[in-house]
Amino acid sequence: MLRPQFVLFGDSLTQRSFDEGGWGARLASEYQRKVDVINRGYSGYNTRWVKHIVPLVFPVSQKIPPELVTIFFGANDAALPDRLSARQHVPVQEFRGNLLSIVQHVQSLGTKDIVLITPPPLDEAARIRHNQQQNEEVSEATSIPERTNTFTSEYAAAAKQLAGELGLPVLDLFTEIQKQKAWQTEYLEDGLHFTPAGNKAVFDLLLKTIRKDLPHLRAEELSDDFPSHRDIDENDPAKSLVSYAKSTSLQAA
Amino acid sequence: MLRPQFVLFGDSLTQRSFDEGGWGARLASEYQRKVDVINRGYSGYNTRWVKHIVPLVFPVSQKIPPELVTIFFGANDAALPDRLSARQHVPVQEFRGNLLSIVQHVQSLGTKDIVLITPPPLDEAARIRHNQQQNEEVSEATSIPERTNTFTSEYAAAAKQLAGELGLPVLDLFTEIQKQKAWQTEYLEDGLHFTPAGNKAVFDLLLKTIRKDLPHLRAEELSDDFPSHRDIDENDPAKSLVSYAKSTSLQAA
Repeated sequence: MLRPQFVLFGDSLTQRSFDEGGWGARLASEYQRKVDVINRGYSGYNTRWVKHIVPLVFPVSQKIPPELVTIFFGANDAALPDRLSARQHVPVQEFRGNLLSIVQHVQSLGTKDIVLITPPPLDEAARIRHNQQQNEEVSEATSIPERTNTFTSEYAAAAKQLAGELGLPVLDLFTEIQKQKAWQTEYLEDGLHFTPAGNKAVFDLLLKTIRKDLPHLRAEELSDDFPSHRDIDENDPAKSLVSYAKSTSLQAA
Repeated sequence: MLRPQFVLFGDSLTQRSFDEGGWGARLASEYQRKVDVINRGYSGYNTRWVKHIVPLVFPVSQKIPPELVTIFFGANDAALPDRLSARQHVPVQEFRGNLLSIVQHVQSLGTKDIVLITPPPLDEAARIRHNQQQNEEVSEATSIPERTNTFTSEYAAAAKQLAGELGLPVLDLFTEIQKQKAWQTEYLEDGLHFTPAGNKAVFDLLLKTIRKDLPHLRAEELSDDFPSHRDIDENDPAKSLVSYAKSTSLQAA
């Protein structure tokens, strides 16, 4: 395969990013004919669990490393340690260390461009409703949210701070989404996962981050895979297409 | 990378398939966590042109061949030889031969599962409007459609017949879309390319084809990449994850 890869690495907020109107699908559309956008989202995973699979998800044997990797965790790590999703909880200091080791592994492949994405804000009232629906009962456990905005804010801050220390671009979704009007209902469908409007906001913000911090990866800077059909010499198509292949040192190996 | 690949090979009807509501994005969502859906759509290309790049798009050096390839051409080959898009025209017999050689190359990689997709029907009135908008004038050339439904029907029939002879599954979009009510305006945005509703129809029909003719590729037959987070032993996550990697003979090479 010829095209550079953008790999989206994360939890369900990444795994579901090709659902209708999803931010991953929008990125694939933006970079059509230029980049393969590869989804490596693992629903429900926290950084403690995902750390074990990082060497398999990003094998060092891969000849051409991803051109860009987004690392988007924290929503599960920030589950509270004494509530319904306690088993997903990871203390914030460990979260930070896990993120660092993920970044270091990805960098060891030769990938230079990494965007850290902070977990988004939570709508606690919607989480309670969701938990009660999932558990089909109102109990002490389902009457309080399993994640809170305050607690998640620490994970967002840790990711942002780490990005700063490492000199990596960061998309601070936690802050940016809360700037929007009625974000709780407009952008989140169950207090945690994105609506189509929320997905569009994530895409717009990610694109803004790329355009600002990684201008060499703007879509208009990347060439199409093979020439425009308008540039093919209809009397000698082989010439147009073979010379392109040579100019980009592609080989029909 | 660990996951099987479905490669979508075609013209603009494939290249744009990750645009909003696109059939490619829908397929990626359907197969999330299981399959990488790779877009190899080349807007404006006919089979004569694309034939030259087939060995580069599908290098024989690729270690693991695509699990599924959709081959979806004909919309440009069927441009009429004496009208506005004449340079894209390819005679139907040559189209058939080109399709065959594409199939044979893909099969030579080791890929067994190939779906041929016929070109969709045309709305000629909408094409005239589109051509006049594009050319900003009403002339003799823009007052007649550059593609017609009757002419395209020959290319659809050729693709369908070839699939039959080769024993390959075929998605006869030309016939199926015309069964739908008001397909001209509901499914096509400019008489040729799909609206979101048209994209959904293409996805639904493709999924139906896979489920019927390639039941081993139904999403529920394919395993997720790494275990469900619910199956991870929180007291020994490494064990759950490493044993999975061993069971699927993955190596952190």
